[in-house]
Amino acid sequence: SFVLTLVLKWFFCLESNMTDAATNMRLKLPITCFILEIILIILFGTLVQYDYETDAKEWHNTSHQDYENDFYFRYPSFQDVHVMIFVGFGFLMTFLQRYGFGSVGFNFLIAAFSLQWATLMQGFFHGMHGGKIHIGVESMINADFCTGSVLISFGAVLGKTSPIQLLTMAIFEVTLFAVNEFILLSLLGTKDAGGSMTIHTFGAYFGLMVTRILYRPNLDKSKHRNSSVYHSDLFAMIGTVYLWMFWPSFNSAITAHGDDQHRTALNTYYSLAACTLATYGMSAITSHDGKLDMVHIQNAALAGGVAVGTAGEMMLTPFGSMIVGFMAGIISVLGFKFLSPILEDKLKIQDTCGIHNLHGMPGVLGAIVGAVTAALATTDVYGQGMADVFPAVADGSVNATKQGGIQALSLAITLGIAVLGGLIVGFVLKLPVFGTPPDTLCFEDSVYWEVSLMRPERDHRVQVHFIYISNHKHVCEIMCNICVIYVAVFIFLT
Amino acid sequence: SFVLTLVLKWFFCLESNMTDAATNMRLKLPITCFILEIILIILFGTLVQYDYETDAKEWHNTSHQDYENDFYFRYPSFQDVHVMIFVGFGFLMTFLQRYGFGSVGFNFLIAAFSLQWATLMQGFFHGMHGGKIHIGVESMINADFCTGSVLISFGAVLGKTSPIQLLTMAIFEVTLFAVNEFILLSLLGTKDAGGSMTIHTFGAYFGLMVTRILYRPNLDKSKHRNSSVYHSDLFAMIGTVYLWMFWPSFNSAITAHGDDQHRTALNTYYSLAACTLATYGMSAITSHDGKLDMVHIQNAALAGGVAVGTAGEMMLTPFGSMIVGFMAGIISVLGFKFLSPILEDKLKIQDTCGIHNLHGMPGVLGAIVGAVTAALATTDVYGQGMADVFPAVADGSVNATKQGGIQALSLAITLGIAVLGGLIVGFVLKLPVFGTPPDTLCFEDSVYWEVSLMRPERDHRVQVHFIYISNHKHVCEIMCNICVIYVAVFIFLT
Amino acid sequence: SFVLTLVLKWFFCLESNMTDAATNMRLKLPITCFILEIILIILFGTLVQYDYETDAKEWHNTSHQDYENDFYFRYPSFQDVHVMIFVGFGFLMTFLQRYGFGSVGFNFLIAAFSLQWATLMQGFFHGMHGGKIHIGVESMINADFCTGSVLISFGAVLGKTSPIQLLTMAIFEVTLFAVNEFILLSLLGTKDAGGSMTIHTFGAYFGLMVTRILYRPNLDKSKHRNSSVYHSDLFAMIGTVYLWMFWPSFNSAITAHGDDQHRTALNTYYSLAACTLATYGMSAITSHDGKLDMVHIQNAALAGGVAVGTAGEMMLTPFGSMIVGFMAGIISVLGFKFLSPILEDKLKIQDTCGIHNLHGMPGVLGAIVGAVTAALATTDVYGQGMADVFPAVADGSVNATKQGGIQALSLAITLGIAVLGGLIVGFVLKLPVFGTPPDTLCFEDSVYWEVSLMRPERDHRVQVHFIYISNHKHVCEIMCNICVIYVAVFIFLT
Repeated sequence: SFVLTLVLKWFFCLESNMTDAATNMRLKLPITCFILEIILIILFGTLVQYDYETDAKEWHNTSHQDYENDFYFRYPSFQDVHVMIFVGFGFLMTFLQRYGFGSVGFNFLIAAFSLQWATLMQGFFHGMHGGKIHIGVESMINADFCTGSVLISFGAVLGKTSPIQLLTMAIFEVTLFAVNEFILLSLLGTKDAGGSMTIHTFGAYFGLMVTRILYRPNLDKSKHRNSSVYHSDLFAMIGTVYLWMFWPSFNSAITAHGDDQHRTALNTYYSLAACTLATYGMSAITSHDGKLDMVHIQNAALAGGVAVGTAGEMMLTPFGSMIVGFMAGIISVLGFKFLSPILEDKLKIQDTCGIHNLHGMPGVLGAIVGAVTAALATTDVYGQGMADVFPAVADGSVNATKQGGIQALSLAITLGIAVLGGLIVGFVLKLPVFGTPPDTLCFEDSVYWEVSLMRPERDHRVQVHFIYISNHKHVCEIMCNICVIYVAVFIFLT
Repeated sequence: SFVLTLVLKWFFCLESNMTDAATNMRLKLPITCFILEIILIILFGTLVQYDYETDAKEWHNTSHQDYENDFYFRYPSFQDVHVMIFVGFGFLMTFLQRYGFGSVGFNFLIAAFSLQWATLMQGFFHGMHGGKIHIGVESMINADFCTGSVLISFGAVLGKTSPIQLLTMAIFEVTLFAVNEFILLSLLGTKDAGGSMTIHTFGAYFGLMVTRILYRPNLDKSKHRNSSVYHSDLFAMIGTVYLWMFWPSFNSAITAHGDDQHRTALNTYYSLAACTLATYGMSAITSHDGKLDMVHIQNAALAGGVAVGTAGEMMLTPFGSMIVGFMAGIISVLGFKFLSPILEDKLKIQDTCGIHNLHGMPGVLGAIVGAVTAALATTDVYGQGMADVFPAVADGSVNATKQGGIQALSLAITLGIAVLGGLIVGFVLKLPVFGTPPDTLCFEDSVYWEVSLMRPERDHRVQVHFIYISNHKHVCEIMCNICVIYVAVFIFLT
Repeated sequence: SFVLTLVLKWFFCLESNMTDAATNMRLKLPITCFILEIILIILFGTLVQYDYETDAKEWHNTSHQDYENDFYFRYPSFQDVHVMIFVGFGFLMTFLQRYGFGSVGFNFLIAAFSLQWATLMQGFFHGMHGGKIHIGVESMINADFCTGSVLISFGAVLGKTSPIQLLTMAIFEVTLFAVNEFILLSLLGTKDAGGSMTIHTFGAYFGLMVTRILYRPNLDKSKHRNSSVYHSDLFAMIGTVYLWMFWPSFNSAITAHGDDQHRTALNTYYSLAACTLATYGMSAITSHDGKLDMVHIQNAALAGGVAVGTAGEMMLTPFGSMIVGFMAGIISVLGFKFLSPILEDKLKIQDTCGIHNLHGMPGVLGAIVGAVTAALATTDVYGQGMADVFPAVADGSVNATKQGGIQALSLAITLGIAVLGGLIVGFVLKLPVFGTPPDTLCFEDSVYWEVSLMRPERDHRVQVHFIYISNHKHVCEIMCNICVIYVAVFIFLT
């Protein structure tokens, strides 16, 4: 009985200090959520209006056929993008064995906040009409895009931040995203429909800087939880596959109607297919025994979509798209294998999901490909379609070479704003008021979530045992057999 | 060896009386399925026809462009609704640890039945053309909507009913749904495109009455299974996220073409986003240590979609939508925390999924919001679009205030039919012929499903051990170490 | 200590010979992937062009409205098909307890390869315009369709083949698929929009022949892994439900615009619903204690989609569709119950996923239904729509009866090419250079994938123990209690 008590105590001691006062969200999270939402509602009330395709009066004031409403051109793409944001990003991050709730749940929270805040910020910078922000399906897609950028940054700090930190990061990042987007798309006339620069490069380097500032020297105390188990990898594959399938919709969602949307989807489709073969090849070659690594498959196979984010709407040709996708897959796996450890050890950048390999480098590659493709654009190839893809080239205000230069400049600006912004926001998030988890409890859901398995109610003890025994009967059986053998050997020896 | 036998026997005794004669579906289920399907086929053969947009001859008889076919206006929305019905509802209910097969599987069965039966019932009440029911993409959406209502009721009785009971419930509920829908939409001219009343309020109060009549005083014998485990909660999040993402398509699926579909999707999008922030805030504030509760996130975050089901197509504005969504999230979490225990303890309503909090109260809220918004409608705001949203107001047969009154009356009628219908159907389901599970085996898949883990074939015993050992090697190792320590201590003590 | 060593050794001996030299993919897989992708890129560079709806210049050269672009008619269906290929097929096969990575991952790899190769092969046979292959959304759907056929064959050999074998199979199967499709659709004028013959029958009998040639007499050495566990069945249900929901899009994806797409979706919807009820009924009646079998639900419920693949676009009527679906469900469950064991024991066809029951027999049924429906076509029923469905009948070059004959002949040709092709490719795959897994390690992910659970790094031992103890605390507790009881009994007896 003494021994029994000892053993049982040892098990239960694990349970203590799970509920640290510092990480208690009882007041912090509700206050943050309510204040943010009330501010959003007030700002929407004073600033936001239906656009003419959404407003009952406006739409019926002008003569249109119903099928000309932008809704029918973009809503299916919008829904695909929406799935990528909530299922794609959410489940991609469930690969961690004890952070599935946090991955899907915090993804859900910050996405729901960001899309509202992005509507305001993007509307403020480039959607004002007579003092009002006009919204419709295109602004919804843009808000989801901006949200995607925040979720990329979330990938870098996954498991090491409190929900309040994440909401705070979202407030700043959405704002800076809108500033950068305004400079690029509105001031410079950059083309970036799929967001290689505005979404991926921006989100990645912003997130990397934040995680750099939030560097935890003792993170290896949570090392054992910073990895996957069998079923968590399968959940993550749900995210991967949805991102992969719907990326053609992502890149084509806000390109011009007609051939442009069609072409962008096609280019992305082939880029991703080529990227996938490169990923499988590279994954096998870089492992010591030729086994495929789920981390590579889950992430690098998507780099092909990132890398044609800028050039996808251009006359890149399927041939060009496949070359770009192929290169993106190779770069991305090499990044996971060789660059990530260096970033962590030398530069102290702890990048949980490896966003540098999936969004950072492929985003930069995509920007460069976009600049080159733009510089090579000719009327011979684009014909009258030039006005859709490069309006400034079509109306003669810049030539193609200069458009290429603008694209390259845009990359530099994006990197600058992302790095600087990330540094500043990182320092803000370091303030000791956000309830960040201790080093010993990173990558652990039970810090912020009720996790039923770990705390069964006392009065159900007996039933719980029975469930376990019925669920794990064979383990139990084996154990018993082992005990028997063991004791038999013991008797034999004595 | 004697001890070994004893221990093994103890394990296996659990297996007995799993296969109760009463719950045996060997004949009952096939007979029910076959008779129902044959009746359906005969009725379809005598009553159902393609509508003019689906029929080869009819469509080509009139002069149309192909893109004017309703298919292109509604099919993407239909598919989103379809995903909500089969993946959304199905996986949302997999949160129970041992009822995943039943959740997805019975959801699948009763949905496949209901959508056929609903086609007939809805067609009979408001789709007859010259003695024939005309069907096309709009009738498919309506059939899925009606199915949704049955699945809401399923949520209340989840885990406590046999498949035959569920099919029987579906037969009656679909019929009453069609009656109620006919009274509201056809007789009174109520507007309810997203079904706050017809789908959510009706399904919820019907289901609550059924579960009230099927009250089990000894349900706590299955209490240990009436909860989630880590991975079952992740599966449920798949359902939640799909419902959340596609709710804009749900509410806009059968609104008028053009600005109406566009506006409804937009309103729902912002309502849901606001609802999500309210849910996270309320979940943290109502828990004793500030931890988020998966039950709230999985359910209450969706209340915003329910609550704009009626008013979503109206000129509610994003501002109005967000206020409604925000309120719905708060009400829903409070319902889970404070009202559900009261319903169970005082009113003896055992509501497995908490449908009162997700569909009941938010549905009523949505009906009220719809009535108020309708009463406030002016030509100044709606312009020529009034004819789409409120045809009776546009043609002058009622004024806006009266339309509001009709909306309010419709809520009362819906509640009346749902409660009365649920009571009667509950008594029908109480007949002791349906093979309902005993109190000790509720929330348990192995009653109606082959569950491989629990009954490995005898001749594979050795292999099974090996799999378990290889899958759970570390548990085994630890156990052995513990044994060693244990015996060592034992020897030391003796 | 001696005993401890013994026990530990026994556990770890399992780990040896996991990394067999023969199955090592370190060089084979990268070389295969890279060479294939480079060949694809070169061929795309020399042969492939945007079609006129995707090309910026071509589209703007002719006068069109943007909404007339085929993109808006087919892209939503394309995305649904894409989900079926990657999520549907991928997750359907995750039912195996230890082959989830291989199911989703190899599905991903061979699909990404096949869709590129299919673009070329199908383009070569029936998409050449002036020496160039023209591509757009329709060719993307066709490439996905061809990929589907390869994935059906993959289902037969699942768990028993290396990725190189699968890629090799895909190379040949895609080629033969394109040949068969060319003979049917282009030479004979067969109608098969949903691919009952070209996709399902072809893929099934091809795969069955391949697995026949690859027969493993000692496969029962891996028998214990050739089954499902609780959560793997839930993952598989994700695949099932997506296939089920999106099958209306699959069958209607490449039918003519307007009423044809509309009608095909409708027919498939009702066929699947009827099939589902038949499946549940048959599953209960064929099991000895009336319990539903997940294998049937996951597979047979889909047979209704396969069986209306040919006739879905015709004037089959919902009545006809439901009869076909009902029959398909019955046939499919009977196949699983009675035919599959015979195929395995007598004909030595080891069909892992039972593709003969889901794709083989229902595909043949679909072809027959198509032939009969075609033979019965009259202008009275089709009107001007005859030109869309049966152009050869409309222009008088064949009569309806002859069209029916052509359909029946096409089934025979498809079966011939599939069986012969499968035999030859089976022998190719038997060459001992592909790194096929040994009989003892079939259905096992760790042969080709890094599986974290099974090989934790040594230095994390202690942490790993802690995770396990915290995750499986109650198992541990029970074990300890048992030990205590055990030792107590032991003491008592001695």
